[in-house]
This record gives sequence, structure tokens and C-alpha cells, in this order.
Amino acid sequence: MDFITSNQNSLIKEIKALEIRKNREEKGLFIAEGLRFVEEAVKEKAQIDKIVVSNMFLESKTGLDIIDKIHNMGLSCYTVSDKIFKEISDTQTPQGILAVIKKKDAELCDIIKSNNKIVILESLQDPGNMGTIIRTADAAGMTGVILSKGCVDVYNRKVLRSTMGSVFHLPIHRTDDFVGVINQLKEKGIKVYASHLDGSMNYYDIDECHNAAVIIGNEANGISDEAAMAADYLIKIPMPGRAESLNASVAAGILMYEFFRKSI
Amino acid sequence: MDFITSNQNSLIKEIKALEIRKNREEKGLFIAEGLRFVEEAVKEKAQIDKIVVSNMFLESKTGLDIIDKIHNMGLSCYTVSDKIFKEISDTQTPQGILAVIKKKDAELCDIIKSNNKIVILESLQDPGNMGTIIRTADAAGMTGVILSKGCVDVYNRKVLRSTMGSVFHLPIHRTDDFVGVINQLKEKGIKVYASHLDGSMNYYDIDECHNAAVIIGNEANGISDEAAMAADYLIKIPMPGRAESLNASVAAGILMYEFFRKSI
Repeated sequence: MDFITSNQNSLIKEIKALEIRKNREEKGLFIAEGLRFVEEAVKEKAQIDKIVVSNMFLESKTGLDIIDKIHNMGLSCYTVSDKIFKEISDTQTPQGILAVIKKKDAELCDIIKSNNKIVILESLQDPGNMGTIIRTADAAGMTGVILSKGCVDVYNRKVLRSTMGSVFHLPIHRTDDFVGVINQLKEKGIKVYASHLDGSMNYYDIDECHNAAVIIGNEANGISDEAAMAADYLIKIPMPGRAESLNASVAAGILMYEFFRKSI
Repeated sequence: MDFITSNQNSLIKEIKALEIRKNREEKGLFIAEGLRFVEEAVKEKAQIDKIVVSNMFLESKTGLDIIDKIHNMGLSCYTVSDKIFKEISDTQTPQGILAVIKKKDAELCDIIKSNNKIVILESLQDPGNMGTIIRTADAAGMTGVILSKGCVDVYNRKVLRSTMGSVFHLPIHRTDDFVGVINQLKEKGIKVYASHLDGSMNYYDIDECHNAAVIIGNEANGISDEAAMAADYLIKIPMPGRAESLNASVAAGILMYEFFRKSI
């Protein structure tokens, strides 16, 4: 196992470069940090390119066990000084383990099956919201996630952290042709609801959730007119109080759990 | 109007000191930053101690209008250099206006009325979660919020920002005697539900929401055994998927909207 002490090392440079979306897309790689996240990646058979641990992690009891497992799986593992690990870590108190993983974007056909319950995000910008929605989608038993081109990158480390590992649990498809995909869903008999402040139907009055999708829009502007036009129904979450809007991940949670309760 | 250019000025020191919870509690003051937030404070008749604007804000068209209004209301207003404003601001690109406001904590009797719909937070730690829950409580028409001693301070600036102004819309009571308060609610005929992973009842099966409260626990540990014992019912949000838990503000949103839909 190599021991890296210089931040000019090519591996360290490669990992730092993966902070930038363009590089992640070119290389087809992303970083999962933290023991739980790396273990989830292993369990879910994500394609792990290499694992990097800090010196401190290596010398810990947990570390020794984990490194053994990593070796038995034939994965490449590198040790770096604690100082270098802090440089490549995204957290204030790093656990000392991260994995470089091959991205695996789902195709639309991986998402459209039977009994679909799909959440569609349009131009969602906040990494915490995106991650929380993926986590909630996983909890609520949704079957897939579709992202418009304008969304924050799902492989952004803050998004990944907020998913709490759920990013490995359900297919996520990113599309450049947002309205085209909505139309494809409708052609397959999937009812497409869109969350909209001007929705004419309250969310709890929807009836078909066994084969349905719901669109959540941008935090500030909601969904686009094109997406609203393409959807079958505009639904709203009433706000009897005085707040003017809901946080996007809360709204998505309420709607996805409506899909759940209507389909049991 | 005074123009402050030194960060050694006593007002600047006072504002910086209010970053610390202990000082906010001793002085009974907190800071609301941003135009919308300050306008909301004015609209809601919060007791504004003073207003501070940056030079840039003062020279803008909006700034001049606002300053006029502030003067007409007889409020103290101070101008500081843009550099100093950046030092006292909590955001990366400050709008250039903040207010120092007198805290107004609600008493329990301000919260217990009739047709109560109360959300109770126990040891909630994340400022974003707390703020988002207050915002959602406002949207969903909840009537009050109760916080245990162990919660993050509601006057933390990140909490305030996440409330989007809803902090002024509903009474918020903080208690040192958490279980005592739960018992008082029950004595007043208020049904107390607690969100719990081991809950025996699904949240959508609750029936009494016209005069009820729901407890949301700490992000990592849920609610305490004492609170669980004190509650009337433990309820759960089922997770048919593979995520192990929900984000606290998402869970709170689902439960508060259940209160809303069952009481219309």
C-alpha cells in the first residue's frame, strides 16, 4: 500500500479535481467520503476505483479491520498523511476514509418499469435539498428519480452526504430533454403531477399513485411553464398559515408520502 | 444618523457579541438580517432596538425609501462602511441592512388556547432543521411551537434565516421542564403524539388533530425515553424503502400536514 505525503502527488491532484463537476463528468468518477458511505458503496456493489485512508484511520482498530476487507476484495488502497487527508476531505473532522467511485447514471428505461412512483426534479439548486429528497424518495419507496439538466449535480459531495447513502438505492436519471421525458412517461401511461402554487387540486385529492410521477421545481421559481403545461395535473399543498412557501425538500416529502399512502 | 467606520465602535462590538447565544440571552436581543426579514419584523411589530445599514444600501434607491420609513417610525438607524457591514453580516453577499430586535419569548399560556395544533421539538440540533420546521409549522397552520432546553437557539442567525420570517408569525415557548410541559398539555385535554421509530401507530391513522401536539426528537437519537413515556401515543412514519431514517424537518412536515388535513 502506497503512502502519500505530498499534496503534489497525482492521485491527490486527481481527487481534488473531482471537486469540480466538469471533471467528474469527464472522468466519470465521484468521491464518497466517510466509513458508512464507503461501506454502503461496497454493499451496493458500486464500482470502486480506489480507496484512500488517512494514517490515523489505518492505525485505528476499525481501520485495520476495514483495510483487511478492502485487500480481500482486491481493491486498490492508498494511505495518505492526516494532513493531506484533511486537504481532500469535505468535512471538518474527517473520519479518514473515502472512495473514488465510477459514476453509474441510470437510463430512462431503468426507471420506467411497472407500478412506477417517480420523483422528478426541475432545476433544483440546493445540494441539501437534492440529497434530502433522494433520501426521502428512498424511504417512501419511490422507484426512481429524474433530474433536469439544470439541477445541482447529484455527485456533488454535499448532495451525496445529504442522501445518507440512498444515492445507491434507487435509479437516478439525468435528462437534457426534460419535457420530452415527461411526454414519454405519459405515453407509458404514467400520470404526471406537478407541484405548483397555482395548482387547482389539493395534493391529498389525487387518486392515482400506483403508476405516477411528481415534479418538484426550483426553490425560488417553482416549475417552468413548459413543465407545468406538459404535466397531467397541477397539484398544490395548501398553506392555511402565513408562510408564503414551503422548503422544497419538505414539499417533496409531503407529496412522496402521499404517493406511498395512496398505494398501500 | 451616525456613520461608523471603525470595528472598535461599541455598537459594532455589541452586534458581534450577539453572535453568541449567552450574550443574546443576557441582553435579550437578537439580529435579523436582510431587507425582507427587517420589513417582516416591522410589519409584525417586533420591538426593534436599532437598525444598521451599509453605506452602499443607504445610497441605493431602495435604501433611500427604507431609510425614510425608518425615520418616520422614529427608529434609531446607524450607517456603517461596507467593509464593516461585511464583518457583522452572516451572509456572503450582504444586502446591507440588519435590525437588532428585542427577544419576545412566548409563555406557555400564550400557546395553550383552544383548537391547539402544537409542534414540540426535543433537543433539535441543526439550525436549518429548526428554521425549516418553524416555517412549515407556519405554513401548515400550527398554533405554536415548544422547544426543549437542549434545542439549538431559535435566535441563531441560521435558524432565523431558515424560518424565512415565520419566527414572527407564531408563538414559540422554550422550557426547562420538558416532561412537565407535556403533562400540562395533557391536563388541558391536548392529545400528545410523539414521532418514534418504534411507534405502534402509523401517522395517517391518528384521528384527533383538532386539539393535539406532536413531538419531534433529536436528529441522531430521536425523542428521549422520558418524553416517549409522557406522550399519549407513539406514532411512526413507515419507511417501505431502504433508507433508515428521514430528515427531521421532512418528518415534521409530513406530521404537521397530517394535523392540517385531519382538521379541515
